[in-house]
Amino acid sequence: MIEQTGNYTHNASETGTAQKYASQTFITAISQAAPVTIEKYVVIASSLNHGEAELLKYSQSLLNSAVFKGIEVLENAHALKWHQVWQDCDIIIEGDTAAQQGIRFNIFQLYATYNGRDSRLNIGPKGFTGEKYGGSTYWDTEAYCLPFYMATSDITIAKNLLVYRYNQLDKAIENAKNLGFTNGAALYPMVTMNGEECHNEWEITFEEIHRNGAIAYAIYDYEKYTGDTTYCDDKGIEVLIGIARFWAQRVNFSTHKKQYVMLGVTGPNEYENNVNNNWYTSYIAVWCLRFTSDKIAHLKSNNASRWNEVSKKVNFTESELTKWSDIIDLMFFPEDKELGIFLQQDGYLDKEQILVNDLPASDRPLNQKWSWDRILRSCFIKQADVLQGLYFFEEDFDLDTHKRNFDFYEPRTVHESSLSPCVHSILAAKIGDREKSYEMYLRTSRLDLNDYNNDTEDGLHITSMAGTWLSVVKGFGGLRVHDGMLHFTPYLPGHFTALDFRVKFRKAIVSCRITQSGIYITNESNEKMIFTIYGKQHEIEANGRLETSYQS
Amino acid sequence: MIEQTGNYTHNASETGTAQKYASQTFITAISQAAPVTIEKYVVIASSLNHGEAELLKYSQSLLNSAVFKGIEVLENAHALKWHQVWQDCDIIIEGDTAAQQGIRFNIFQLYATYNGRDSRLNIGPKGFTGEKYGGSTYWDTEAYCLPFYMATSDITIAKNLLVYRYNQLDKAIENAKNLGFTNGAALYPMVTMNGEECHNEWEITFEEIHRNGAIAYAIYDYEKYTGDTTYCDDKGIEVLIGIARFWAQRVNFSTHKKQYVMLGVTGPNEYENNVNNNWYTSYIAVWCLRFTSDKIAHLKSNNASRWNEVSKKVNFTESELTKWSDIIDLMFFPEDKELGIFLQQDGYLDKEQILVNDLPASDRPLNQKWSWDRILRSCFIKQADVLQGLYFFEEDFDLDTHKRNFDFYEPRTVHESSLSPCVHSILAAKIGDREKSYEMYLRTSRLDLNDYNNDTEDGLHITSMAGTWLSVVKGFGGLRVHDGMLHFTPYLPGHFTALDFRVKFRKAIVSCRITQSGIYITNESNEKMIFTIYGKQHEIEANGRLETSYQS
Repeated sequence: MIEQTGNYTHNASETGTAQKYASQTFITAISQAAPVTIEKYVVIASSLNHGEAELLKYSQSLLNSAVFKGIEVLENAHALKWHQVWQDCDIIIEGDTAAQQGIRFNIFQLYATYNGRDSRLNIGPKGFTGEKYGGSTYWDTEAYCLPFYMATSDITIAKNLLVYRYNQLDKAIENAKNLGFTNGAALYPMVTMNGEECHNEWEITFEEIHRNGAIAYAIYDYEKYTGDTTYCDDKGIEVLIGIARFWAQRVNFSTHKKQYVMLGVTGPNEYENNVNNNWYTSYIAVWCLRFTSDKIAHLKSNNASRWNEVSKKVNFTESELTKWSDIIDLMFFPEDKELGIFLQQDGYLDKEQILVNDLPASDRPLNQKWSWDRILRSCFIKQADVLQGLYFFEEDFDLDTHKRNFDFYEPRTVHESSLSPCVHSILAAKIGDREKSYEMYLRTSRLDLNDYNNDTEDGLHITSMAGTWLSVVKGFGGLRVHDGMLHFTPYLPGHFTALDFRVKFRKAIVSCRITQSGIYITNESNEKMIFTIYGKQHEIEANGRLETSYQS
Repeated sequence: MIEQTGNYTHNASETGTAQKYASQTFITAISQAAPVTIEKYVVIASSLNHGEAELLKYSQSLLNSAVFKGIEVLENAHALKWHQVWQDCDIIIEGDTAAQQGIRFNIFQLYATYNGRDSRLNIGPKGFTGEKYGGSTYWDTEAYCLPFYMATSDITIAKNLLVYRYNQLDKAIENAKNLGFTNGAALYPMVTMNGEECHNEWEITFEEIHRNGAIAYAIYDYEKYTGDTTYCDDKGIEVLIGIARFWAQRVNFSTHKKQYVMLGVTGPNEYENNVNNNWYTSYIAVWCLRFTSDKIAHLKSNNASRWNEVSKKVNFTESELTKWSDIIDLMFFPEDKELGIFLQQDGYLDKEQILVNDLPASDRPLNQKWSWDRILRSCFIKQADVLQGLYFFEEDFDLDTHKRNFDFYEPRTVHESSLSPCVHSILAAKIGDREKSYEMYLRTSRLDLNDYNNDTEDGLHITSMAGTWLSVVKGFGGLRVHDGMLHFTPYLPGHFTALDFRVKFRKAIVSCRITQSGIYITNESNEKMIFTIYGKQHEIEANGRLETSYQS
């Protein structure tokens, strides 16, 4: 009976002993209940939840209760719990066993890792399956995991992930201050347990700052999906202001370009370091400034007293908004007009332009075969951050822009970040490249099953598994949310006979079945539901069902 | 009686015991000779020079000899040795005690550090005065120390410094191979004892590659100063080919720019990392290709059989020359035409342009007051590498180019590299900025006496002390060598009443006394000597003397 899962849980092996682990005490009590059947009962309790003095006693009572219930009752409870998980969020793919196995493996690992009941806990990229990354939290949580938990769990779970960062805001402000930032600018750590930066490389800690953007984006994503504006008004607004202040100080005005620039950053593509004007980072920075300005305006007009409170707490001055607005207007974004693409960073086109297909198979994965020198100077991309930007901010760009950028960056991407293929799968589906979308789906969903990057021995890629879920639901299912509505534009791989998935959306629970010719939506809630399929608006009554055919 | 100085010598304190230190055994034998006068005799011998078996015996005999000679004889020998050093290379500055003290302090430390009798030994940036840099060898030796030892010592000493690198060529080739370079390309380590790279940061080891250029430059400098072409033909040519091959593979052709570029480097200005097209590095790279091509052509036409031997040994193909020539013709060098300056690197002008004078004193030295993040993104320069390039290759550029670049970069340079002010002092003298030249001279000569960078506790800046010597002789004395001749263009600080220095040049020993109105040159050799003063040619007979007045 594990009292608590999340990245603070550890095992101990002695019977009835207390173990100190970091600042916590864990009690593991083991009892051999019946000498004949040899059943062994283990409970784990943590000082995170109980006073140290009572911990042993509490464990003992938990253990007694477990022994009293007996193995059958416990096993049934366990099975029921998992049954509930599968009922809520199973995905069924018909016509492709490997694809089916992949997504189920991913969903299982995700729910074995995080249940979200405690806002002090978060999700490590390896979950509990390996020691790499030390169980710490990365931007993966906000960018990849949040949408999965929003759509498959109770909304309090997603909210807890946001509160986790709110609770660490002071540490983020301190972190930025140590680097020379002022006035409450906040830089969230790249890697953390308790809000302090736990990474040890400068090219990551103060250069891979796009993570700050993801933390703001999660607030936007949460609000857009749930329609709940209270989190932002109550807490998120302070996080946004800290982040916006960071960006406003992190850019500088180039008198040479007569534009604001962002120097010395590392984008999500970690096969570059210390570049200037990383398109993704600059884009999300400006977006943060705009979103924060909007949220401040919203709060001012909807809850002036709360804004006064916030404004006083963070010492906000109106001139900050003017400065942000100036940056929004005058930010430099590198692009190549001839190719019609956004440039990953200044000078990217000076690199020798080779495609991944031209690489001998024996050279891959690059990070195990090439020197770091060679990787850094090559055009090869670990994770295409321009495409990550298009994925996050797709409404800002037309389909042709998506296509041109995808066609340029995909062939240069080696996907040696586990977070890469899911995004490519979604974008490929969007631009109508069915083959690439499926290839990328297999790569994300079977990354550890097939050990594509020759690194599964380090542990499973837990956070990217949420990306796999996204590649099914947003990619093949074409699910999007805007204007408070669900929108479907499905695009199934040709050999899938059917895809079934289920999402929670606000008050609704929606089951979708997509075949090569039809879409079947069931409204499992007690209110009517409005949504679109391929842009056409539909309505389903409470507990109703809709069937519609389409030309895939 | 220290048998050997250089960066392998260490002390031990036990009487008559052997100590293992790295791969060597040192014997320190101590004898208390006379119980009444309490004289203590210490000898140091190393397994670098004697078999381990005989080491203790050898030390004992050295010790016996020392005791036999007695303190007075030993002290006299010691004093005589130093007398010889001062006779050969003292510099006298009249009218400025602080300036006089500075240069003598520097010369004393240099000769206390390195005597150059053993080509296995080299010069650590801290000499024996501190543990920082671990006694290892940097590019400081070639760029700063070599000219000092060439002009003040027997020429075999400078040659030994070159042979040191020749003996480590195989390791340099192995180092490059580990990074993915092929065909005998050589990358000398940033920091070394035995030829292996001893630095542990990627932004230095495979990005601060300009050091390779300095090692080639030393061969050029040696040949230019001494007129001795045999070293290059016998050994240096292989070093040059290895280095040229490295550069030819390290650049890449940008189809975008239609020029060769050099991506991902760190220049001598270590307050930048991983920049593209560092002007200094690109310039010295192309220079290496040109110089190596020239030396190959020279060897081919003057000693075809030796060239055949070299060519076979290094598997040289003529197509390499074609490739080098293509790079020489098509290399990209960043510049700003409007300002008329070479750009330190791509995008340098995008930085916020603040001058050092605008910094509060309390912010300096930056490396002790600012975060690394802030330093990297600022325009402030540790050591201005464009100016280092102008210093090395001054004949390639006119005086106005020197002026424009100096006027741009000097006010942005914080001189937090000890190697910086000496070069600025020389350039300031060249362009006629007497005040700056003197300021920079004091900064280099009294760096440790005044603890300008608040880091003397780490040890003295030994290698930059050779730079101090250069700032007197090349700066105030205006001494240059070209066309096999010495050229003087003195430029004394206004309050110096006189400057005396002495240089060895080929067969000549030349004493110079410069006052505010006159130059006095003594030819201490037995052959007549031709040289110029302010471009006007003069001749002095063997052991003759020349007086000439000038308008300073």
